[in-house]
Amino acid sequence: MFVQPIATLRRDGDGLIVLDQTRLPWRVVERRLATLEDVAEAISTMQVRGAPLIGCAAAFGVAVALASGAGADAALDHALAVLRATRPTAVNLAWALNRMDACLRLLPHNARSGAAWAEAEAIRAEDAAMCAAIGAHGLGLLRTFKRTGEGRALRVMTHCNAGWLATAGMGTALAPVYAACAEGLGVEVFVSETRPRNQGLLTAWELAAAGIRHTLIADNAAGLLLMRGEVDAVLVGADRIAANGDTANKVGTYLKALAAHAADIPFYVAAPVSTFDPGTACGEAISVEERAEEEVFFVHGLDGEGCLGRLRLAPEGARAANPAFDVTPAVLVSGFITERGVFGVEELAGFLQDVRA
Amino acid sequence: MFVQPIATLRRDGDGLIVLDQTRLPWRVVERRLATLEDVAEAISTMQVRGAPLIGCAAAFGVAVALASGAGADAALDHALAVLRATRPTAVNLAWALNRMDACLRLLPHNARSGAAWAEAEAIRAEDAAMCAAIGAHGLGLLRTFKRTGEGRALRVMTHCNAGWLATAGMGTALAPVYAACAEGLGVEVFVSETRPRNQGLLTAWELAAAGIRHTLIADNAAGLLLMRGEVDAVLVGADRIAANGDTANKVGTYLKALAAHAADIPFYVAAPVSTFDPGTACGEAISVEERAEEEVFFVHGLDGEGCLGRLRLAPEGARAANPAFDVTPAVLVSGFITERGVFGVEELAGFLQDVRA
Repeated sequence: MFVQPIATLRRDGDGLIVLDQTRLPWRVVERRLATLEDVAEAISTMQVRGAPLIGCAAAFGVAVALASGAGADAALDHALAVLRATRPTAVNLAWALNRMDACLRLLPHNARSGAAWAEAEAIRAEDAAMCAAIGAHGLGLLRTFKRTGEGRALRVMTHCNAGWLATAGMGTALAPVYAACAEGLGVEVFVSETRPRNQGLLTAWELAAAGIRHTLIADNAAGLLLMRGEVDAVLVGADRIAANGDTANKVGTYLKALAAHAADIPFYVAAPVSTFDPGTACGEAISVEERAEEEVFFVHGLDGEGCLGRLRLAPEGARAANPAFDVTPAVLVSGFITERGVFGVEELAGFLQDVRA
Repeated sequence: MFVQPIATLRRDGDGLIVLDQTRLPWRVVERRLATLEDVAEAISTMQVRGAPLIGCAAAFGVAVALASGAGADAALDHALAVLRATRPTAVNLAWALNRMDACLRLLPHNARSGAAWAEAEAIRAEDAAMCAAIGAHGLGLLRTFKRTGEGRALRVMTHCNAGWLATAGMGTALAPVYAACAEGLGVEVFVSETRPRNQGLLTAWELAAAGIRHTLIADNAAGLLLMRGEVDAVLVGADRIAANGDTANKVGTYLKALAAHAADIPFYVAAPVSTFDPGTACGEAISVEERAEEEVFFVHGLDGEGCLGRLRLAPEGARAANPAFDVTPAVLVSGFITERGVFGVEELAGFLQDVRA
C-alpha cells in the first residue's frame, strides 16, 4: 500500500498541519493552521493545492472552525461560505463542503464539532482509497498502451502536479505511474514545468524521491515531443468535469490535449467521481479562476547560496492575464480513469446515472 | 520610416557592436565583437538572436574574420564553417553565409575584406527594407481581420520575439503591429512569455517603449484565450519554412497554431523570403536545435534591489529536454506575410518558383 512520504495534511488537536507546497521543491515546511482563516488562506495562496487535497483541506477547515465550540448554524454557514470562496474552479471543494453541510446540518449544535472531525477524516481516508483505485485501474490501462520502441519504458507526459502532493493518497494522474513502478512495469515521465506556478517542479520532486526516471520540459516543448513520437500517452488530473466531459484542469492542459489528438496519442484524465459535475452542462459554463498578475511577473527558486529567492521577470508597469485553468473539450479526451474504472466520453452519461443511482 | 531605438548591430572599425539581448529587458548593454569567435559566441549564446538578425550578424562575422587581412580561401572557409555551426535551425544564417561566399569567393584575396563589409551592410539594409515591406503588407492584412467587439482594438497574439530586436529593421511578426499603430489603427498584443528563454519579455519591452498596449501571459494561457474569443489573430515569425509550408519557429508556436486552428482564428507567419527553404521538403526534415538543460533549470530576472540575478528552479540531479524550436504543419498556417506580399500555403509553390526565376 502506498504511504505518503510526508502527510499532505493531518489533524493536530484543534488545528490542521499541512505541507506548505509554496516552499517545495526547495524546502519541506509544515504549517499549522489554527483557525478557519488560516485554512482559507492556505487554500487561496496554494500552500495547499490540488483539487482532491483542496476538498480534504476544506472539510478539515470546517472542523477547525467548529472546534472552538461554535457549532451554531451561523458559525457553520460562515465556515462554509469562507471556504467556498477560496477557489472557484475545482468542484471537489464544493463537493466536500456540501458533504460536510449534509452531515452536520441536522445534528445538535454540540455534536457538530466531533462529527466534523470524523467526517473530515472519512473524506481523507476515502480520498486515499480513491487514489489507490485510480492507480489500479490506470495500471491496467497503461499495460494496453503501445510503446514506440520494443523493450523500452512507457513514456507518459503529465502536466502540473496530480501526484500524492495533490491528494491525501497516491495521487490521481501519477497514481497509475506509481502503481506501474511498484509492479516493475518500466515507466518514465515527461514533466511539464507548468508556468506560472511551476507545479511541474513538485512533480519532478515527487518522482525523484520515488526513483522514477523523468525529464523536465518547458511547457512549450510538449507539442514537438508529441508530434515526433517521443511520448506514448498523456495523463492529467482535473478540477471539474462537465456533464458532457469537457474538462477543466491547470492552464496548459488543453494545448497538450490538442497536440496529443493531432498525433493520435492517448490523452486520459484521472480524477475521482467527486470531480464530475453533472450540474455543469459543458465547458463554457465552467468559471475559470483569474489569479494575480504577480504570479506571471515573479518567479521563485534557489540562489547561488541555496537560499530561497524571488526574481522579477517582467518590466515595471507590465500587465498580465493569468487564468489558472483551461478547458479541454471532451472530443480530445480518450477517456477518464476513476476509482470506479476507466471509461470513454461516450459512456459518461451512463456512468453519471449509475453514480447517482 | 521606422528607426530602431537602438541599433541591434552596427559596424565599429574592424569589429561589430551588438545589443546584448541576454541582458534585456533589464539592462541595455552593447557589446563589441572583435573576432570571429566573439561573433560566433554571441550568436550561439543568443546575445544576438532572431532569425533575420542572426543572418545579418553572421554576414558581419565574415567581415570581422577577414578584417585582419586574412582573405585567403582557408580563412574564408574557416569563418563560414565556424558561423554555420552556431545555430542549426534558422535558415537565414545559411542563406546569409552562402551569399557572402558567393560574393567573395571569386574576388582577389586582398579585395575580400572590403567587399565583405559592403555585402554585410547590403544584407543589413535589405533586412531593414524587408521588414518595412512586411509591415506594409501585414497592415493591409490586419485591416481585413474581424474584431469580436465593435470599435475595439484588434487583438493580436504573438510568440517569442519577432520585433525590431530580432532584425535590423522593424521586425517581422511585429512589423504589421508597428505599421498599424503608426496609421492609428488600434492594436493590442498578447505576449507569450516564451519559456525557457523568456523572449516574450523582449517583446513586452519593445511594445512598452513604443507605447503599444500589451498583456503578458504564461505560454500555457494561450489555449484558453484563443478558445474564449479573446484574440483576433496570431502573428509569429519563422526560422525555416520548408517547401511544403511547414514552419519551424520558436518552441511553443505549434501549440498556438493548433489552438488558433481549433478556434478558427487566423494564424499568420511573417518572414522574409530568405526564410523559405526550397531544399527542405517538409517539416520532418528540419533539424531542431536541442539546447542546454540549464536553460530549463535556471531563470534570470531582477532581485528586490534591482540587481540582475539567477535562480535555480529544478532540483539538483534533474534532467531536461530543451528543443529550441517546433514545427507547425502548413495545414495550420493561414498564410505567409513576406516582403513580396501575403499569400496562402496553396500559392507557396508558385511563389517559390517566381522567387527563383
